[in-house]
Amino acid sequence: MSRESEFQAVARELGYDFSGELQKGGNYTPFVRHGGQVFVSGQVPRVGSEIVVTGRVGTEVTLARAQLAAKVCVMRALVLLRQSLGSLDAVGRVLRVTVYVQAADGFSQLSEVADGASEVLFRVLGEAGVHTRTSVGVAQLPKNAAVELDLIAAEN
Amino acid sequence: MSRESEFQAVARELGYDFSGELQKGGNYTPFVRHGGQVFVSGQVPRVGSEIVVTGRVGTEVTLARAQLAAKVCVMRALVLLRQSLGSLDAVGRVLRVTVYVQAADGFSQLSEVADGASEVLFRVLGEAGVHTRTSVGVAQLPKNAAVELDLIAAEN
Amino acid sequence: MSRESEFQAVARELGYDFSGELQKGGNYTPFVRHGGQVFVSGQVPRVGSEIVVTGRVGTEVTLARAQLAAKVCVMRALVLLRQSLGSLDAVGRVLRVTVYVQAADGFSQLSEVADGASEVLFRVLGEAGVHTRTSVGVAQLPKNAAVELDLIAAEN
Repeated sequence: MSRESEFQAVARELGYDFSGELQKGGNYTPFVRHGGQVFVSGQVPRVGSEIVVTGRVGTEVTLARAQLAAKVCVMRALVLLRQSLGSLDAVGRVLRVTVYVQAADGFSQLSEVADGASEVLFRVLGEAGVHTRTSVGVAQLPKNAAVELDLIAAEN
Repeated sequence: MSRESEFQAVARELGYDFSGELQKGGNYTPFVRHGGQVFVSGQVPRVGSEIVVTGRVGTEVTLARAQLAAKVCVMRALVLLRQSLGSLDAVGRVLRVTVYVQAADGFSQLSEVADGASEVLFRVLGEAGVHTRTSVGVAQLPKNAAVELDLIAAEN
Repeated sequence: MSRESEFQAVARELGYDFSGELQKGGNYTPFVRHGGQVFVSGQVPRVGSEIVVTGRVGTEVTLARAQLAAKVCVMRALVLLRQSLGSLDAVGRVLRVTVYVQAADGFSQLSEVADGASEVLFRVLGEAGVHTRTSVGVAQLPKNAAVELDLIAAEN
């Protein structure tokens, strides 16, 4: 299956439509392509105008919902990579993913949350989606999002 | 107006003098230039020997003061870019900015804080200052700073 | 003394054996080498199957123990750089280090914690180990680790 078909299959499974214009949260740009690398801004799990998973993971948000949030974040990042490079096929390698989890006191399953995003990257991009990763639990995220994710990729 | 003149205009508006030697907080270097990229260490809103905005944003620190802190951080980063490249004119593009806000429980206007920094980058560098950005609210910052900011830029 | 000998000397001083297979915490890869850069995933102070320093720095964990944790994290990163490049001698420059500290409320000696890692990098790699750095205090880290560290390096 092509990367684009895989992307669409994941979108259907999640039940969200990622075809609309991506909103941005402030005075910056969602991606910069430069010198063979693409930097993608921090993505929250927004679909259309709604943050679909808000609250603190571990109390208000379950691990499963946080993993869903991580998947939505990374799907948004994939949309931006496609927009930047013209096609998902032009992604040479995902270099770095950072996953920020709005974590309740004592919630340390941060890698497990991030696994949601890693799984999607590998499924859609195959070996090119195998990335380095850092997962941390932070105090607050923009708009009370449960998860935020940014990444750096290399083009083919 | 040249980039340098814009920089000086912002400095005057902020009422701070950025001409002194920048202090560093520990055993590392404020910038590394390598392979066409410049990495700038995390900057807190220090002017001379004083952190000008300390405390927790949302309770002890207002949004407006936090935006000021973000501006001071990014002015320091601009000083370092200038020092690294010889001139602000040599900045080809700001690739990535990460903004850490020492946020009170429930304070989620993190993008709004970061807008302070983004505004300065665009004003001083124009299109070259349009960057990708990640904003997160963290538990603690060095020396009780309200905001910390790091960035990666590309040279011309 | 060669870089490898320095590395072994630090390992002896810390009293830990870094020769085993490094475990990873989830569905990602510990390093990616691409375009002259090596990205290293977030490292917690794990030795074998044990996280050697857990808890919140400032209450449960002293500054000295947190510095030890930072040293263990960076030794793991050095192991990965060696594995990626074949030898520590192939590290051209450490570009960026980010240090996340699982900090108690009011603990702001985050740069001091990170100094533990910076000291090891300089000792093992010399001038090539002088890096840019960002230190932040976060709410939670994977597996209740006291410190997490990631880095980007350039090859020779």
